[in-house]
Amino acid sequence: MAAMASLYLKNPAPLSHSFTKPTKTHFAPPLKLRLRHGPASKTRYPTRISASLINPDGGKLIELFVEKSEKDSKTEKALGLPKIKLSKTDLQWVHVLSEGWASPLKGFMRESEFLQTLHFNSLRLDNGSVVNMSVPIVLAIDDAQKGRVGSSTSVALVDDEDKVVAILSDIEIYKHNKEERIARTWGTTAPGLPYVEEAISCAGNWLIGGDLEVLEPIKYNDGLDHFRLSPAQLRNEFEKRNADAVFAFQLRNPVHNGHALLMTDTRRRLLEMGYKNPVLLLHPLGGYTKADDVPLIWRMRQHEKVLEDGVLDPETTVVSIFPSPMHYAGPTEVQWHAKARINAGANFYIVGRDPAGMSHPLEKRDLYDADHGKKVLSMAPGLERLNILPFKVAAYDLTQSKMAFFDPSRPQDFLFISGTKMRTLAKNKENPPDGFMCPGGWKVLVEYYDSLNLVENAKMPEPVPA
Amino acid sequence: MAAMASLYLKNPAPLSHSFTKPTKTHFAPPLKLRLRHGPASKTRYPTRISASLINPDGGKLIELFVEKSEKDSKTEKALGLPKIKLSKTDLQWVHVLSEGWASPLKGFMRESEFLQTLHFNSLRLDNGSVVNMSVPIVLAIDDAQKGRVGSSTSVALVDDEDKVVAILSDIEIYKHNKEERIARTWGTTAPGLPYVEEAISCAGNWLIGGDLEVLEPIKYNDGLDHFRLSPAQLRNEFEKRNADAVFAFQLRNPVHNGHALLMTDTRRRLLEMGYKNPVLLLHPLGGYTKADDVPLIWRMRQHEKVLEDGVLDPETTVVSIFPSPMHYAGPTEVQWHAKARINAGANFYIVGRDPAGMSHPLEKRDLYDADHGKKVLSMAPGLERLNILPFKVAAYDLTQSKMAFFDPSRPQDFLFISGTKMRTLAKNKENPPDGFMCPGGWKVLVEYYDSLNLVENAKMPEPVPA
Repeated sequence: MAAMASLYLKNPAPLSHSFTKPTKTHFAPPLKLRLRHGPASKTRYPTRISASLINPDGGKLIELFVEKSEKDSKTEKALGLPKIKLSKTDLQWVHVLSEGWASPLKGFMRESEFLQTLHFNSLRLDNGSVVNMSVPIVLAIDDAQKGRVGSSTSVALVDDEDKVVAILSDIEIYKHNKEERIARTWGTTAPGLPYVEEAISCAGNWLIGGDLEVLEPIKYNDGLDHFRLSPAQLRNEFEKRNADAVFAFQLRNPVHNGHALLMTDTRRRLLEMGYKNPVLLLHPLGGYTKADDVPLIWRMRQHEKVLEDGVLDPETTVVSIFPSPMHYAGPTEVQWHAKARINAGANFYIVGRDPAGMSHPLEKRDLYDADHGKKVLSMAPGLERLNILPFKVAAYDLTQSKMAFFDPSRPQDFLFISGTKMRTLAKNKENPPDGFMCPGGWKVLVEYYDSLNLVENAKMPEPVPA
Repeated sequence: MAAMASLYLKNPAPLSHSFTKPTKTHFAPPLKLRLRHGPASKTRYPTRISASLINPDGGKLIELFVEKSEKDSKTEKALGLPKIKLSKTDLQWVHVLSEGWASPLKGFMRESEFLQTLHFNSLRLDNGSVVNMSVPIVLAIDDAQKGRVGSSTSVALVDDEDKVVAILSDIEIYKHNKEERIARTWGTTAPGLPYVEEAISCAGNWLIGGDLEVLEPIKYNDGLDHFRLSPAQLRNEFEKRNADAVFAFQLRNPVHNGHALLMTDTRRRLLEMGYKNPVLLLHPLGGYTKADDVPLIWRMRQHEKVLEDGVLDPETTVVSIFPSPMHYAGPTEVQWHAKARINAGANFYIVGRDPAGMSHPLEKRDLYDADHGKKVLSMAPGLERLNILPFKVAAYDLTQSKMAFFDPSRPQDFLFISGTKMRTLAKNKENPPDGFMCPGGWKVLVEYYDSLNLVENAKMPEPVPA
């Protein structure tokens, strides 16, 4: 598996830029309110990472680790501070912040950032420029914790074993209006939103923001840490590969051959546009996911098989884990998924149908309009520099016995295999049609559902749409 | 009353600009994310109205009336189109759009504008610039109406007597997801939001957007039409008065001497900043308000008495009616209130505690944090050109027997007279302390509540906070 992240191009192409603009997407808003910028953005920032990759939001990548030389003194300082215990999800956000996925954020949001996120999905910087920020990255505390903080201006953030993970300085404590946060982030307050139940409902009624300093990189010791490349590490990797375009593919599901077709086709299109060496960032989400999603460890095994099988070209593919928790907040969240990938060096983002969507928790319908994600993404403030690539619809072509782009002139030839259908097949140890997924990848899925039967020997999670 | 809008300065000051920046407000966000621009904004648009007033959003004021020469032919055309019947509130939005309060909007929102409003509270224009737009201005239709529209690309908008009011062309029909609209606009989906019950719950499940052409200016024939100055008319009025600063005060309540003190003090501060002739736009909201607000006709009578009484200087005050309906959407709506006043020529906006707020419909608390309105306003995209003036707290100073700015060093000397208290006094025909409100204005309030008793002779509306 390590090979996935360490393969190099056999024939590295010279660094070169093509400023060809991508062809117009079919979802351009009717009023053509959107201006798209190719690699030559009108806002230029000083870069510290690479002249060849898209600049991070705010001009430089913000890493929030304490200097090695200061680690001991900071640790000692932390021991004297009021302590805030982090939940598992809080820790994932510390990870996200520490590596600069949310650049230029320097810590958990203060109220001004929280309000801008809720109302504008973006932050205005000191220099007047705007960066996208659609999902609140906040730390909740309860009355008792607030009382313990008292008049201290800094707190220590500790893990579930009371080990100090980070210091939060120059803190600001403000009200956590959960109803408003939920309504503005999800566009509903219906009970049953997974992230709300996991991380908000039981959380405290206060939020604490401040500047974050993390004592050492967050590790999970689950055998996958070497896949958790930070934005800086990814940028280095893309530079080593001489990438002149990076296209990111966010996923939290197994990869089938329709995905692979799309990614291969995207590379072809980028080459046609004049890019010499487009590299794919295959970027499964690694933080909190809902109970009926396939767990990260199994997804990574499945992705490994897909790469081994040659469905995707390992030479032009970087597989890495995106450490963010999942909100399932549709059009709001897809902006976060895209923005974070800019910070990792991606200047193209592939967006599919109903990104970060799910079923309405109460009603028999999708929570979001399937097209709103890509529409909102295409108009989002602070994402003008990113090129949005719509997901072409792939389906199983019965005439070719393989996944192919849907041809509306002969709909009778295509079979749509939904996520629900896929999961049901895997659970029943049945095979999908030949050419739907590489056999090794499919075997992993069958093993996963088998393991659920063995271990739990109980009720099966409900299937959900892909 | 007509005198209010037609008074001129006795000693008109010469046109002149002071680019003095306003002093920093106390609510600047901790990260200083906000850049404030004085009258010299960095974005310059060609002006068509006046070189001395702030430019309308998008550079020019959009008026959507048909040319007189085309009125007959357009009317005839309209008679052949599918008809959409407008509610009273819809008609108020037609009024708002037709006069350019929502410039550069050219009609009811299409989906791309609706989505940008919900997610970003702003619209990106073709030239890449951003204007604020926080409240959806949309027209709902039901399945039957959608069926009648069929494949037509235009519709006629008719009033409750089936008279054609306007044509909507190049239409786009899209889903009206009410839950998401409400959640993202109000930050709650609790039942009991007045505008939702008035205009959304019973509305259709589709929205129809398009380019609006209004056959003739909307009139209400309620004796107040001469107070309904359009943005273009207000701009002319400010020019005639040689205003070099216009400060707007949005209100939907009776004016007491605390308000008057604030407005007088604002003018004083603007003069200190170097402006030669700051003019107040006293701008009561004239569209839909909830049942327990004082109706427009009574408020206008009260405002008239206040001006007659000399509490406000008629020479530097323009009283006019803002035709928008009220959402009671707090921090989201205050942006709309401010943005619309830019289009009318105001470059200063006075914002108070909990603007456009109300009690939570279900819980015993304010729906919004009282400070969020001014914080959100101060950070809102597209409002960088507007100078936000925070409302100083006024209270009844027992030592002076008049309204004065609250002095925290001697809190025991101040009496806070809430809106609830004020209404209870008026209902009971009791007098407030001398100096709280001019006697003529108070008498109007007492008469209003008296008329309620006489006419309805039934249950009294519940008092609500100011």
